[in-house]
Amino acid sequence: MNTLSQSQIVPRLKRAFARRIKPRKRSDAGLRVVRIGLLGFGRVGSAVVNTCRRARDAAARRGLRLDVRAVLVRNALGRPAPDPRTCLTADADEFFRQPIDVVVEALGGVEPAARLVETALRRGLPVVSANKALLGERGPRLFELAETLGVPLYCEASVVAGVPFLGDLRARPFAARVRRIVGVLNGTSNFILSRIERDALSLEAALADARRRGLAEPDSGRDLSGADAADKLALLLLHVGLAGVQPDAIERSGLTTLEPLDIAAAKRFGYAIRPLAFAEIDGTHVTAFVGPGLVPLSHALAHVENESNGVELRGPEIGTVFHSGPGAGPDVTAATILDDVIEIAAHPGWRRAAGAPAVRAAPGAGRRGPDHPLDRSERLQIDAPATAWFVRTRLAAHADVATLREVLNPQGVSLRATGSIMDQPGGRVLHALTHPCRRDRLERALAALHAATGGTNLALRCLEDRA
Amino acid sequence: MNTLSQSQIVPRLKRAFARRIKPRKRSDAGLRVVRIGLLGFGRVGSAVVNTCRRARDAAARRGLRLDVRAVLVRNALGRPAPDPRTCLTADADEFFRQPIDVVVEALGGVEPAARLVETALRRGLPVVSANKALLGERGPRLFELAETLGVPLYCEASVVAGVPFLGDLRARPFAARVRRIVGVLNGTSNFILSRIERDALSLEAALADARRRGLAEPDSGRDLSGADAADKLALLLLHVGLAGVQPDAIERSGLTTLEPLDIAAAKRFGYAIRPLAFAEIDGTHVTAFVGPGLVPLSHALAHVENESNGVELRGPEIGTVFHSGPGAGPDVTAATILDDVIEIAAHPGWRRAAGAPAVRAAPGAGRRGPDHPLDRSERLQIDAPATAWFVRTRLAAHADVATLREVLNPQGVSLRATGSIMDQPGGRVLHALTHPCRRDRLERALAALHAATGGTNLALRCLEDRA
Repeated sequence: MNTLSQSQIVPRLKRAFARRIKPRKRSDAGLRVVRIGLLGFGRVGSAVVNTCRRARDAAARRGLRLDVRAVLVRNALGRPAPDPRTCLTADADEFFRQPIDVVVEALGGVEPAARLVETALRRGLPVVSANKALLGERGPRLFELAETLGVPLYCEASVVAGVPFLGDLRARPFAARVRRIVGVLNGTSNFILSRIERDALSLEAALADARRRGLAEPDSGRDLSGADAADKLALLLLHVGLAGVQPDAIERSGLTTLEPLDIAAAKRFGYAIRPLAFAEIDGTHVTAFVGPGLVPLSHALAHVENESNGVELRGPEIGTVFHSGPGAGPDVTAATILDDVIEIAAHPGWRRAAGAPAVRAAPGAGRRGPDHPLDRSERLQIDAPATAWFVRTRLAAHADVATLREVLNPQGVSLRATGSIMDQPGGRVLHALTHPCRRDRLERALAALHAATGGTNLALRCLEDRA
Repeated sequence: MNTLSQSQIVPRLKRAFARRIKPRKRSDAGLRVVRIGLLGFGRVGSAVVNTCRRARDAAARRGLRLDVRAVLVRNALGRPAPDPRTCLTADADEFFRQPIDVVVEALGGVEPAARLVETALRRGLPVVSANKALLGERGPRLFELAETLGVPLYCEASVVAGVPFLGDLRARPFAARVRRIVGVLNGTSNFILSRIERDALSLEAALADARRRGLAEPDSGRDLSGADAADKLALLLLHVGLAGVQPDAIERSGLTTLEPLDIAAAKRFGYAIRPLAFAEIDGTHVTAFVGPGLVPLSHALAHVENESNGVELRGPEIGTVFHSGPGAGPDVTAATILDDVIEIAAHPGWRRAAGAPAVRAAPGAGRRGPDHPLDRSERLQIDAPATAWFVRTRLAAHADVATLREVLNPQGVSLRATGSIMDQPGGRVLHALTHPCRRDRLERALAALHAATGGTNLALRCLEDRA
């Protein structure tokens, strides 16, 4: 590990600190310039450049001017740099030779982002990233590296991009005493479900509409499958002190089998269907899932619509706390990224010492990333929870609610409520709510139902307000 | 002004910084001790002491132990100190002679809190306060003093006590680009309105219930009149960069004239009645009001019930962001206060140099208080907004909707919707919604209505979702 001894650190810190008192570089307007190196120049990267230019007064309120001085792209051929002074390059070594103070990672995906972020941290450059795929999978390793090196790694825009709350979880241990998380963390899925709910569109038509509005990428697989939400849930769990949860370990179901009639039936039971991310923490035992599920219409998440995101946190001290706001979008993401840059620049000792590979920044300088003294040898147990279930089944012509009960009850699944039977082109459709049970029991019961009636089934988890 | 020259500051900072690297004082468990001086020992003060004891692991996650070492009370006679090592005194001089690192102000009210907070800041002691009456009225002066001295003044628990978001407004200029604030900021009023809404209680019965549950003080005048919410709104405006708003300059109406039938009528129009705090910012022109008002049932605030608080912020970068959670309560307030203490203690250079009257802390150390470079000579213009109005009037036996229109239209007030006439013991009651207009015009129209029909009237502001 490339760390410095305390006797090396103290004089460096003193120098860095003294420099801060006499700022080295001020623009004409008396503002301190923060030189940004940008990894990636796609939608978010371009928005970062534009927001730096367009909203100068926001940074000026903190005595700063934000300047993008270097941009690393995959292919620099024929691409104009955003500014004559900006170095646009496809060469990582050239990028890191530029005089930059902080790195903004706007590449997306795990590699090469992980390698480049690690390089930046090892060079003592603070990093801001909104890359949930990177941080969901490699978060524990990268935050540990940042902590060891004493270099800030901030990621406020990675979960509910428009609402700063991750940093508070990190810096405020009472606020972070969270025992239950329920969120709508994927804007694309929520937009699609909202369109199905409001306009009875098919899933395909709703997805096409999301693409038309720029709310879904051409490849929306990670959004629809729940992979994106699982990354964010793992990152949230990291911020409340649980570093051991890999996104792949979280039960995940996609949107693919939902129909408008399911959303209408859920509503008649008093619920909204939302793309949920759920975790309940009991010591080192975590139950979690990601996928479309039911929340009561009285729940705050039932009113988080379209591309908005929301998250409810419950804990012994904080009670029930709820945040909602824009979950994505280049402009919102860029504004939150730049707020991270400004928070980093407000801390003393954050600017790298010239030529030094890594300067230990002041403790707290990395507050936007989690640095709880986690015992990573502690074995977390991750399970799916027992919840109520919302079941849709197609029945044979002669079957009815009694048939359903006759099949499910011997399997240990009991019904709390049933809807009315609807005659549909594909057969009779019936919706029901079960009492809470685990997925394996429900799946055995649904298999028995399939054997008995031949119909296809849908099962979504259903959260009670006090679940 | 008692400031230090730069040549005095730099060596002190270096000493403070070097000390931080080699922590001076660790407890047996290797934790750094933060010595708290507590002003006031009422419900919040007692909860601070208890939470320090009960939730040691939360502070220990940050390597800290929180110890209340001194308590200042009005009358120390016969009161036991919370701990044998704690100095409980009614003498402010004795209090400030104790070895304390940070002051928690839990007195409530403007004086003597203001004088004691100022004394603490001038002695270089960081201050945490949840006192909205103090900060609403004296906030601009106290935060300016804290900024000048470089001593942190944090107040996260003063608005929506359980939800940290003020500090983010302070530290994150893009997040703070807020153009519209709508909040439910007073838990007592919201509980009372919820009880009237749910159980059709009279205001008096609902208030008695709130008192029984400890949700209303014996003197709840400031809660019911809107004074408490106006203090919080002024403090919020301070955090988004407007330091010139005095709570008294905000239009304020109380709960006193509401009846269960009004809430039911509002619901039929598609609205919930909430105790609102509203501000819209256009440059240096602010329109604001505090008082019971209507929000659409689809609005997030319509689902903030009982003693919960919520606040919606809108801005050009952030879009619409919403936070809700516990608004008060001794335990929640204590947890948020102690998170403030922990945030302060995480910053380098925060501990006062022994014997020094005031050490300039690192910039950013005061991030929980606003320190925007506000031009305080800039004259803010504060007005009440033009909104739609929800009107209840008692009509004479022969009067009807046509009568209402005949009286209101010549006064320039037009109706958007009317309810059905209800025959009540006191006469015929009619509810209506107007198109937007200013209060003076509405009041002239209501005076004309009173002259024409003799009935008493009620008028509440009504916010459209896009108002």
